[in-house]
Amino acid sequence: MHKEVTGAARIATSHDVARAAGVSQPTVSRALRGDPRVAEVTRRRVARAAARLAYVPSERGRSLSTRRSGRIAVVVDDLDNPFYLELLDALHDRLERADTRMVVLTPHRNDPLRVERLLDGSVDGVVLTTTTLDSPLPAALRARRFPFVLLNRVVDGLDADSCTVDNEGGGAEVARALRRLGHTRIGALFGPPDTSTGRDRERGFRAAAGTALAAELVRHGPFTFAYGHEAMGRLLASRRPPTAVFCANDVVALGALNAARGLGVAVPDELSIVGFDDISMAGWELVGLTTVRQDLRRMGQIAVELVLDRIADPDRKARGVVLPAELVWRATAR
Amino acid sequence: MHKEVTGAARIATSHDVARAAGVSQPTVSRALRGDPRVAEVTRRRVARAAARLAYVPSERGRSLSTRRSGRIAVVVDDLDNPFYLELLDALHDRLERADTRMVVLTPHRNDPLRVERLLDGSVDGVVLTTTTLDSPLPAALRARRFPFVLLNRVVDGLDADSCTVDNEGGGAEVARALRRLGHTRIGALFGPPDTSTGRDRERGFRAAAGTALAAELVRHGPFTFAYGHEAMGRLLASRRPPTAVFCANDVVALGALNAARGLGVAVPDELSIVGFDDISMAGWELVGLTTVRQDLRRMGQIAVELVLDRIADPDRKARGVVLPAELVWRATAR
Repeated sequence: MHKEVTGAARIATSHDVARAAGVSQPTVSRALRGDPRVAEVTRRRVARAAARLAYVPSERGRSLSTRRSGRIAVVVDDLDNPFYLELLDALHDRLERADTRMVVLTPHRNDPLRVERLLDGSVDGVVLTTTTLDSPLPAALRARRFPFVLLNRVVDGLDADSCTVDNEGGGAEVARALRRLGHTRIGALFGPPDTSTGRDRERGFRAAAGTALAAELVRHGPFTFAYGHEAMGRLLASRRPPTAVFCANDVVALGALNAARGLGVAVPDELSIVGFDDISMAGWELVGLTTVRQDLRRMGQIAVELVLDRIADPDRKARGVVLPAELVWRATAR
Repeated sequence: MHKEVTGAARIATSHDVARAAGVSQPTVSRALRGDPRVAEVTRRRVARAAARLAYVPSERGRSLSTRRSGRIAVVVDDLDNPFYLELLDALHDRLERADTRMVVLTPHRNDPLRVERLLDGSVDGVVLTTTTLDSPLPAALRARRFPFVLLNRVVDGLDADSCTVDNEGGGAEVARALRRLGHTRIGALFGPPDTSTGRDRERGFRAAAGTALAAELVRHGPFTFAYGHEAMGRLLASRRPPTAVFCANDVVALGALNAARGLGVAVPDELSIVGFDDISMAGWELVGLTTVRQDLRRMGQIAVELVLDRIADPDRKARGVVLPAELVWRATAR
């Protein structure tokens, strides 16, 4: 009696329920999830025992009994960027169609997600969206054969499923367009070099911009509005300001655009600004940002399909999908 | 079956056990966690009573048997609205200081979060941010004595911890300000009436606007950019358009502002627009939205403190915190 109560006070396990109902532990799991292989009389007995012990099925127990949690984690550490919201939305919709729930994990930058957190049975797979080039997580997941897909940002030299846009090609496209427009004094607010998106957009842009890119008008910083705002303020304060600035993403470009407005610099008459991502704000009448479009819906769909395929077949060959990047002309560049 | 379990779990409190065992409530807690100050005979009596009542110990009891997950869930179903991102950010920071992890749950609107999902031991408590007035979740959590706090939106007639801004007062403040400016033909893009924020802002605005609010210039809709954009387009197409429009939140106001820009209507010269929330975009140079400020940092802090207090003391009296709403003048109203 005493033992039973202590059990209840410490939260009953399915083993306690099995003992109380006089059945095996797998039978408890089956009975509680309504498996038709369990006779009605047994199901009732298990139900009564579970009620008596106030048993709540645990995540672990559930995943052990069904092997699957029906949940996919999405790791994103930059919820400030609407890009990720739109990506989450696309993932959400595609996962819903697959009858799978989405759990969003938002690790702190100074307390990165540990692989153990993902292996506790609470999720069947994971979509990594904000991986840095030096993140140990993808390799750790790969080593444990835990299903994951790299979305948006990738890491080098890892044989893993991934879906990204042609960042290098997109960056090059912007540089070519600005040169065609006659710009010969171009600035750039590049992104963080420890991200594949930041690095690859910069690489493509530099290669195609050539000498039109003025070394003293190049900055690096995080993918934030504040960086774009501040850095654009500095470029505009320089002795010979640029006539065009490429920004690592739309959020940086929005910061830059607002800084220009605040300083009374007319866009695009005095200054062209181009972003990258084509988040929905880029298309607002108040903004009209010329930018590089990524098909987020399609990226979300592909990522979900890759991770579900990986769950179904852990041994299949890794696939890397690279979608085309498309320059969208609006009102901020001429 | 599930009903039986949850039914049993919801009936007994430590007070019921105390009554049944003829001891005080603290003695029940001590007895069940094996405190040596409780005599063996008393412990047995309490244990028997607890077993008979299928008593599920409180979170505090759970933590003493090291069953805490160290995680708090935040439920938000509207990640499109930067308001919630900023709120998540505030919650994140405060939880980090409490050495607690944040799990973001994003239920589908047509597949609301079930209470069982929260009771599986994966989180110690939950912050609900997008509750609708008819949501059964808060009452279900309350019945099961699971720690939660209503943040931003509340439900009626439930004795629960909550933190919200004075939505009614804020709505009234906007109406008074527009009347003082001389507006006599005011429109309103109110929010969904099934949310406390939508309802209360409307209530306050209507009461203070009086006859200056033109019935034919009133719309209701979701808290989205698309609604604001579309509805403003219609108001401006009416035979006698408004000279001022109050929007249920900043996202709706941004939609309205962009629609006005698209139609060539000068803000604020021809049309004043006022929002609610003061998300960071409201302060952008490109936007300059006059709006009602909520102190999101403070709201996030208070919500975390309320839910942590609740986890520590499941029996304490519920607290409802209402923060003041402050009108912030920028460039879209005159």
